[in-house]
This record gives sequence, structure tokens and C-alpha cells, in this order.
Amino acid sequence: MAKYRLHGRNRSGNTFKIAFFLNAAGLDWETVVATPAETMSADWRARVNPMGEVPVLETAGNYLTQSGAILMELARTTGAFAPKDDLQWSEALRWILWDNHKFTNHWATYRFGHTFATTKPAPEVQAYLKNQSDLHFGVLERTLADRRFVLGDSPTVVDFSLCGYIFYPEAEWGYEWRPSHPNIAFWANRLAELPGWKPPYEIFPGAAA
Amino acid sequence: MAKYRLHGRNRSGNTFKIAFFLNAAGLDWETVVATPAETMSADWRARVNPMGEVPVLETAGNYLTQSGAILMELARTTGAFAPKDDLQWSEALRWILWDNHKFTNHWATYRFGHTFATTKPAPEVQAYLKNQSDLHFGVLERTLADRRFVLGDSPTVVDFSLCGYIFYPEAEWGYEWRPSHPNIAFWANRLAELPGWKPPYEIFPGAAA
Repeated sequence: MAKYRLHGRNRSGNTFKIAFFLNAAGLDWETVVATPAETMSADWRARVNPMGEVPVLETAGNYLTQSGAILMELARTTGAFAPKDDLQWSEALRWILWDNHKFTNHWATYRFGHTFATTKPAPEVQAYLKNQSDLHFGVLERTLADRRFVLGDSPTVVDFSLCGYIFYPEAEWGYEWRPSHPNIAFWANRLAELPGWKPPYEIFPGAAA
Repeated sequence: MAKYRLHGRNRSGNTFKIAFFLNAAGLDWETVVATPAETMSADWRARVNPMGEVPVLETAGNYLTQSGAILMELARTTGAFAPKDDLQWSEALRWILWDNHKFTNHWATYRFGHTFATTKPAPEVQAYLKNQSDLHFGVLERTLADRRFVLGDSPTVVDFSLCGYIFYPEAEWGYEWRPSHPNIAFWANRLAELPGWKPPYEIFPGAAA
């Protein structure tokens, strides 16, 4: 059994964040496909994660949950892509919270509604999520104007969090974000040059689910 | 000048999280009212917080932002309401991320749309946010069934994050959440017994804004 077992699914950009980090850090890991039906079940909630969500990182008998918490824990315990001092750790946490609260959140929910939801959301909800996404894309675009990665010259755990949904096909949103956000597009290209990077549907094998 | 200066406003539950923590921990702090017009300005973004948001905690010349990051930093540097070991720190981070991603997020946005937005959101958007809020209230309600505080018998930094909007008048949402969530209501009562607790519109003086 590998040291790290990543329970997740390849449509989940939050799963991708962890898969990409584990690969880029050269860690020993394996995938465990967890379908939505499984993770929403009472059994899985009781046994693995009461929040009913992926990703979950299993290691040494513990189940770690919430992609941001998993990334911070991996950076802390392995040293890979770790912030360089207390101030930068605090900066990292701030950006990872912002990612979850503002950036990934609205944009991933828009994608789900656009492509995967069995009951289509109201157009007003999609418009709301799109507007929120645009606002927060603007913050990241301006931030990346003067640096190669979000905290400076080197990639850190923060970049792995923020890029969770960046590498999925734009068709899943039904619009192109790259032309109007060149700094984010170039940043994504730099991340894709890191060792171990693969597109989301390849890095986590198994049926798309 | 006090050791900690909290830039915020009293309608902001994210500001309340920090104000309540500072009071309950007995720290030396003062308030700096920052209106939405100020914090969205280019000057404030350049000088204080590029995300254009409150709360911001100023201390020793640094500006800390994002309520979750501020709370973790305060717990780490003061020891107040700090998790007891590495595992509990990781649990704390997980819950604070969940709060930002799922719990406070939808519920606070619903409140804003219901009471404060100058342009009223579409009913479909409010229905979406209400549905998300209900789902995540359910997770917290079940979690609090067998414990006094979110991580166990004692209050931790996590409770200060999750209770950010709990003490505002229910009228700001236009519906009553307490009758259907007794565990959360009792938990809120326990938090209100901590030293230094005050209602949001009293703990942070100044005009409601």
C-alpha cells in the first residue's frame, strides 16, 4: 500500500489539487475512486468524512479532509512547496482561504451547473456565479502581474490550491477565460511545466465521475 | 495605540469573529471603522488589502487579512483558544476552511441580499443560497449533537470562526433558524457565556455600516 491514498474523482478539481501536489513533490501515493453516491452515504460519512466530500487523504490510518488543510499539512510535514517563514505561512493560509471562499468556490459551482448538474440551475444563479467568478479572477489576474507565482518567484502550496480547476477544458464552462486573463494563463503554463503535472483526467485514472 | 487595531465594520460577521476573539482572549485592541467605499478604493487596496475586504488586523506595522488566517495567527501567537496538538491544529484548519467555503459564505451572502443589497438579487439566487445554507447548517447541527464545542469539550479558534454571523438578529435573514437547529442554538448560548462576548452591533462601536 502506498504511503498516501487519495480518495477522490477526476472531475473534482479539489482532488486535482492534491494529486498534482503529490506528483510534483515526488511522494508515494495511489488513487482510490470515490463516487458521489458513495461519499454522500451515511456509511462513508461515519467512516471517512462527515462532510460527505472528496478529496480525502488517507495516511497512517488517518483521514485528512478539505483540500486546503491537506495541502497545508503536506507542505508542513514534507517541506515540499512550503512557505519560507512565519509571515509567508500566514500569507499562504490567507490565499488558501480566499481560494476556498471566493475563487474556486464560485467558479467550480458554475462549471458544475453548466456541465454536470442533472437538474439545471436557474439562469439567474449561473449569472450570479459567473459575476462572482469574474470579480475574483480579476483579483488573481492583478496579483500575477508582477510575479511568477502567487507568493513570489517560486511555486508554493498556494499555487496548487488556486490552480485546482484551471486545467479543465474551457468547454466545461462554456466560455473562454484565457484571452481576458493573460497573467493567469501564463501562470498556468508555468505550473504545467512542473515535474509530475498531467491534465486532470489523466492524473487521476478511472472513469470520469 | 493598542497592540492590535481591527479595521472592520459592525455589519460584518467576519469582523465580529476577530472582535469576539480579541475580547475573549483579553487582548489589547481597538477598532478602526472602514466603510465599504474606503475598502474598495484603489488606495486602500494598495495600502492595506488588495482583496478590498475587511477585517484587517493591524499589528506591529503588519496588516493581516482573511478572518480565518487572522484567527489562526492569533491562536498561534497568543496561545488563546489554540488547538492542543498537531492533529487538532489540522482539524481546526479543516473546519475554518469549511466555514469559509461552505457555511459562512452562503449564509452571509443570503443575508446581504435579503437586507443590505441596494440592488436586490434575483429570487432564484436567494433560493440557491438558502438551500446551500440549509445543507451546511445540517452538517454543523449533526456535529454538535455529541459535543459542547466544535472540536470537543472546550472552545477553540474554530468556534470563533463558525459563529461569525450567528449572533445577528434573525430578522436580517427573514427566517428563524434556531427552532430547527437546537444544537447550534445551544452552542451559541455557550459561546455567549464566554468572557468578553457582546452582540455584534455593540462589540464593534460606530455607525452600522
